[in-house]
Amino acid sequence: MIINYSELAVKELINEVLQAYASQNPGTCKCERCKNDIMALALNNLPPKYVVTDIGRVYTKAVFDQVGGKAQVIAALTSAIQRVRQHPRH
Amino acid sequence: MIINYSELAVKELINEVLQAYASQNPGTCKCERCKNDIMALALNNLPPKYVVTDIGRVYTKAVFDQVGGKAQVIAALTSAIQRVRQHPRH
Repeated sequence: MIINYSELAVKELINEVLQAYASQNPGTCKCERCKNDIMALALNNLPPKYVVTDIGRVYTKAVFDQVGGKAQVIAALTSAIQRVRQHPRH
Repeated sequence: MIINYSELAVKELINEVLQAYASQNPGTCKCERCKNDIMALALNNLPPKYVVTDIGRVYTKAVFDQVGGKAQVIAALTSAIQRVRQHPRH
């Protein structure tokens, strides 16, 4: 099977990054629709990192190594949170 | 849920493009490992097109519209087939 490590990284970090942002910015929506919009937007602004893998052989640490570290994923998520907050579709 | 339309487009076209290439280039491998390598490589060279969607609401035609037409997907697949053929990992 093929997987996009960027997608795994975004799914791994969305809750933590959104929670941190919301704690500084009251009123930030955390509904499923907004979360999906944030993840889709972030992923369209991150380089894809598809790899061939066997099911079950995915390690979180390897994910962040593959995508060039947590920092750029957090930056893409934060930027997406700001955009979705300004233009929510829920 | 979120899906990458580029991934759907690549999965939709891999067999057709690989078959056409192999018919012109005898000896082209069509094993699962090579097919996965080809798809991963093609996807890392196509822009990601993540969208939020409900399960079952994906239409093939919409997929190709979203990714800018079949042509660039076929080009990315063909380029990936050539690279995997030169450096097979099966």
